Amino acid sequence: MASNDLLDILSPDSIAIVGASNNPAKRGYRSVRKLLDDGYAGAIYPINPKEREICGVRCLPELGSLPGPVDLALVCTPAATVASVIAECAAKGVRSAVVLAGGFAEAGDEGRQLQDAVLAAAHAGGVRIIGPNTSGMFNTHKACNLVGFSDLRKGSIGLLSQSGNMALSLVTEAQANGHVGLSTYVGVGNEADIRFDEYLDYFATDPDTSVVIAYIEGLKDGRRFLSALRRFSREKPVVIYKSGRTSAGHISAKSHTGALAGEYSVSEGVLRQAGAILAHRSDEILPMAEALSLLPPLRSRRLAILADGGGHATIAADALSERGLALAPLSEETRRRLADVLPQAASVANPVDVAGGTDADPLVFAACAEILLQDPMVDGLLISGLYGGYAARFSQELLAAEIDATNVIGEMPRRFGKPVVVHSLYSALQADQRPLPLLEMRQAGIPVHSSLETAVRCMQALADYGEMGSVFAALPPNRTGHGRVFERVCAGCRAEGRRVVLEHEGRASLQDSGLDLGPALLAVDEREAEEAFHHLGAQSVAMKIISRDILHKTEAGGVKLNVVDVTSARSGFLEIVANAKAAVTNPNITGVLVTPMAAEGGVEVIVGVVRDAAYGPVMMFGLGGVLVEVLRDVVFRALPITRNDAFTMLDEIKAQAVLDGVRGGAPVDRDALADFMVSISDFVEAFPEIDELDLNPILAYHDGLAVLDVRILLTASSTARSVEKQGIEA
Amino acid sequence: MASNDLLDILSPDSIAIVGASNNPAKRGYRSVRKLLDDGYAGAIYPINPKEREICGVRCLPELGSLPGPVDLALVCTPAATVASVIAECAAKGVRSAVVLAGGFAEAGDEGRQLQDAVLAAAHAGGVRIIGPNTSGMFNTHKACNLVGFSDLRKGSIGLLSQSGNMALSLVTEAQANGHVGLSTYVGVGNEADIRFDEYLDYFATDPDTSVVIAYIEGLKDGRRFLSALRRFSREKPVVIYKSGRTSAGHISAKSHTGALAGEYSVSEGVLRQAGAILAHRSDEILPMAEALSLLPPLRSRRLAILADGGGHATIAADALSERGLALAPLSEETRRRLADVLPQAASVANPVDVAGGTDADPLVFAACAEILLQDPMVDGLLISGLYGGYAARFSQELLAAEIDATNVIGEMPRRFGKPVVVHSLYSALQADQRPLPLLEMRQAGIPVHSSLETAVRCMQALADYGEMGSVFAALPPNRTGHGRVFERVCAGCRAEGRRVVLEHEGRASLQDSGLDLGPALLAVDEREAEEAFHHLGAQSVAMKIISRDILHKTEAGGVKLNVVDVTSARSGFLEIVANAKAAVTNPNITGVLVTPMAAEGGVEVIVGVVRDAAYGPVMMFGLGGVLVEVLRDVVFRALPITRNDAFTMLDEIKAQAVLDGVRGGAPVDRDALADFMVSISDFVEAFPEIDELDLNPILAYHDGLAVLDVRILLTASSTARSVEKQGIEA
Repeated sequence: MASNDLLDILSPDSIAIVGASNNPAKRGYRSVRKLLDDGYAGAIYPINPKEREICGVRCLPELGSLPGPVDLALVCTPAATVASVIAECAAKGVRSAVVLAGGFAEAGDEGRQLQDAVLAAAHAGGVRIIGPNTSGMFNTHKACNLVGFSDLRKGSIGLLSQSGNMALSLVTEAQANGHVGLSTYVGVGNEADIRFDEYLDYFATDPDTSVVIAYIEGLKDGRRFLSALRRFSREKPVVIYKSGRTSAGHISAKSHTGALAGEYSVSEGVLRQAGAILAHRSDEILPMAEALSLLPPLRSRRLAILADGGGHATIAADALSERGLALAPLSEETRRRLADVLPQAASVANPVDVAGGTDADPLVFAACAEILLQDPMVDGLLISGLYGGYAARFSQELLAAEIDATNVIGEMPRRFGKPVVVHSLYSALQADQRPLPLLEMRQAGIPVHSSLETAVRCMQALADYGEMGSVFAALPPNRTGHGRVFERVCAGCRAEGRRVVLEHEGRASLQDSGLDLGPALLAVDEREAEEAFHHLGAQSVAMKIISRDILHKTEAGGVKLNVVDVTSARSGFLEIVANAKAAVTNPNITGVLVTPMAAEGGVEVIVGVVRDAAYGPVMMFGLGGVLVEVLRDVVFRALPITRNDAFTMLDEIKAQAVLDGVRGGAPVDRDALADFMVSISDFVEAFPEIDELDLNPILAYHDGLAVLDVRILLTASSTARSVEKQGIEA
Repeated sequence: MASNDLLDILSPDSIAIVGASNNPAKRGYRSVRKLLDDGYAGAIYPINPKEREICGVRCLPELGSLPGPVDLALVCTPAATVASVIAECAAKGVRSAVVLAGGFAEAGDEGRQLQDAVLAAAHAGGVRIIGPNTSGMFNTHKACNLVGFSDLRKGSIGLLSQSGNMALSLVTEAQANGHVGLSTYVGVGNEADIRFDEYLDYFATDPDTSVVIAYIEGLKDGRRFLSALRRFSREKPVVIYKSGRTSAGHISAKSHTGALAGEYSVSEGVLRQAGAILAHRSDEILPMAEALSLLPPLRSRRLAILADGGGHATIAADALSERGLALAPLSEETRRRLADVLPQAASVANPVDVAGGTDADPLVFAACAEILLQDPMVDGLLISGLYGGYAARFSQELLAAEIDATNVIGEMPRRFGKPVVVHSLYSALQADQRPLPLLEMRQAGIPVHSSLETAVRCMQALADYGEMGSVFAALPPNRTGHGRVFERVCAGCRAEGRRVVLEHEGRASLQDSGLDLGPALLAVDEREAEEAFHHLGAQSVAMKIISRDILHKTEAGGVKLNVVDVTSARSGFLEIVANAKAAVTNPNITGVLVTPMAAEGGVEVIVGVVRDAAYGPVMMFGLGGVLVEVLRDVVFRALPITRNDAFTMLDEIKAQAVLDGVRGGAPVDRDALADFMVSISDFVEAFPEIDELDLNPILAYHDGLAVLDVRILLTASSTARSVEKQGIEA
């Protein structure tokens, strides 16, 4: 369905209210009242067999009495009635419906059946559904308010929310802000029919929307959402607050990667990858969206701070660097020019502290702002402290100058293409006591905040969005992929009804798909073990049991490291097999895998893939050992990943400095690692049979890498299929 | 000086304004005006030889014309005049002065001399000084406002600030809050005379102050401040915002510990240790202080959340657990009682979501709050969502019930001794639009916030303060200490003019002071190396060069590990010495230290001590290896540390789970580690000669620990003394 198909639904020209009412406590009354009060220009058709008119509008007894097709039905009737209402909609050419009632899939099995019936009616009749179990939708530009929130201000921020109360919070906050307005809101409800991704596609083409906020608890189809998000965020910024962050992971924990894939860490990785700007506090969602709607993005993370006191300069610098932004080094010329207009006590290095030098003339403050933004190293300006309150604090005679200064500053984002955000302590005051220059400042399109941290968070969002450009410019991944070997391996597993791919099979499959894992030989008896040692020509080798019955090789005595001669290789083989037989009764032993010992001194990393319930296959990258186990220092991206994604993953782990070399070591070969990760991504993408893949540990060196263990698990369905067939054939 | 000595200064009964003026732009005018307008009850004496009266008050030509002693002089004259003004104060029995002027120590050498002169005059005449370079002070309960901030509200929060603008920010925020008030504010300025610690002592005895906020950039005497803080925080809570958090460390980086001792990580550790509640964002300072002034502390970290929607319940639960608080498990009975009053759609597990069940009757909401607080597992209640806006949103008919419910909830903290904090989306509205129940709620003593994260932060502060009780209940450290050996070592170092204590000297000193470091033998030739191997009777030993000329032993080839027989011990000795001679020209070699190899499998930790410029000796604890080097995962406490401090340090490192055993390993012996840290603390406390001490690595086992390296550096003064003496004697 093309995105504009939602136009009739979210910007309807005619609305039927099913279950319209004369009871002022009911949605069926309030919706009609609201549409009339707001001056909705389209046709309104209240439907209720028991009423003649509602709020002066003639009431129709049933949908069938409609004079012709209608864009949207607002269905206010209880869950049990909805399926037949939808069928009536279909019969009358009503192409879409907002279903308010709860009691559907969210309420258990019975509700789920009701929802299925509604959906069946909708599919059969070509009716699209918002909800059910939604607070509704509004479109301020159309004066179409089907939610009942009061005092909506028209604006350019679109809102998608899985919680009506969170929407109410944001709407109320916008109202209190006094400047921010929303374009269209949709309470997505149970997403029985229309889901997040389609709404995003709509917003991409909606000329009234410049930024979207999405409050998400869980996604019905994470894959589709990511695709829509990727498309959307190339056009417009989207601020996402993902809740349920600290709940326990929801992915099966069969692999190491699976155990580490907590719901939020996966969401955080894949949503960022697809271009979302993530809000981590509920109180920063609206300010971030406001800044993104008003200002140009930051071209770099380098800012200047302009403060009128040492205290604010210091805490602003702290807040900045704690959030990954940087103080731009100021040029000699910039400093000299600042020194020319400021008193000696001022600090003309970044953060700039005017030290009272602008108390008597706010225009000097504007001049400083201009000098800073003219410096090519400065890509944005954070003003912190008293601004806007000069007249209020020192003398009302300053007011005219302060407003002039405000107008000059207000023009700067457009003039320089660089964002300006203001933190002013006077912004904490109630609106009626707030100094006029602050109101003017916001009117000019500069966000003003009483919280310094919120102001800095806005800058961070602008930096995040600024970086998105380079992300999208990255080339698509370089595809490889033969894969014949893995197809045979999968067939073998299917035949045996086995989900675990043996290590030598996994290695051979990756090798066949163009990944260089180095030599590995399978020895089926002690003689072959000797031969393998010879063939490899390595100073020392590692030997590992290969058996479908032994998953924990080390614990079963199935591993020998640092085997340095032929005799030891022979005895090693015998010992490993004996240990295996001692550990497991009558094990199926395929052989012993012999590989050269990896060189010392590499950095232990882990690369894994699991299938997330919402987002499909996601890749994990982390440092091995204690770092991954204790600190869970891992990052996730949805497959397929680009080379750029891979580099971002290396940069995002907390202990990423380890990759640059510790204790005098050389930095690891990031190119090799990134290429490797992209190839793994391609490999997994090519084979939907793969459920989980764990390469742990991988040793990353300054000149390449060594994969020490390969674990691949196939999906239950891919292996069960043939078992079922066998069952049928038998 | 006893704390009450500041009473005359911060609660003065008579004030002379030196440099009083009739120019309304001047502090000398505004201060007189303000005192009169606010109805200050004490005597006001404007001093200016050129004026007859100011604001209707008779002006005196000089301090000498005062009718008698005066409590406080507000000095508004420039820096150059202040020393003589202070001398005049002394002569006339004016016992204290607030010195506003800048241009003192903060402005360079000349200013420093002026400040010294002021201080000399003050000491000579027994005059105490606030400032200089301060915005002033106010005491609302005395109607004594010497700062000029407007619209001060009387309250119980004391404020100490090193930045006038930060004080203005907080005062403005309090004004906007509409409920919070301050008791006394002091701009500490340059702290030439009175410092943070004395002000804290004053606040401890001030009956008008229940909580103190301190904004600190740097401390003149961190040691004294910590003492005052320890005393104070047993009586009243103190919220500290320490700025300059991300500046580069200011401690010499000679040792590993020194390199890791960034200014803020040290401050964070020692301030917490002394009982401070630390604010990390400037926008949470006042809310935290407000909560601490209104509510009982939390007895545990277990809270209940009461929300009126799934969205708020979820994000509140996220915010709570991200800040180290926990959702209390609710008893069967609690759940049953909640289910009795709530509809079926409600969630009666924590977080509780009333799911519309209270929309029609806010008293049900109060009933739920009561049921939750009656559960003994619930130590506090966070309300999140629509509360206060029921009447506004649903029907004005609910208003009376909503106010009744508010009064019931408002009583709960007193009734149950448990805190209640409210997050309400309606609190975002401007005061004139804010629903009445929210105003009533705050009036009843319940903090109300529009930011959920701020509300949670308040709870966290109440939990932090609640835990302080157990900290103070901890026993004082168990002192040991002989120290004869270390005295001799220090004498030896002095004689040689050497600051580095050699490893065998350090080991012997610690051993002598009651720390068991295990056997270590110094071999001066290859024969002794053989003997040492025999004596130790270990399977394998480690050998290390001991030389005052070789600091980096490994790099100089001065270390041999895993020496397993006598022959190798002999050859090892010779090789080490040969390597040392190759690495350094003509090195002074004391010998080779032979120790048993430590057992495998311990957790690498590091314990160190450095002298912080502000706080004196501080102990660092961290995990060794990559964790400390890359993640700087370390914590600090000021010496002496208690056993409780040591346990807290173990708990505070990010990767503390490593101590509980990784990869199936046993947990380390926390008792042994804590005892060891306390003994090290005692050792360093006993010897002011120690500048830095580094025990790195220490291997911590499940049954004790092994110290693998000991580095002690003496202070320059302790070793230089004898050199100087020698110089004099020579």
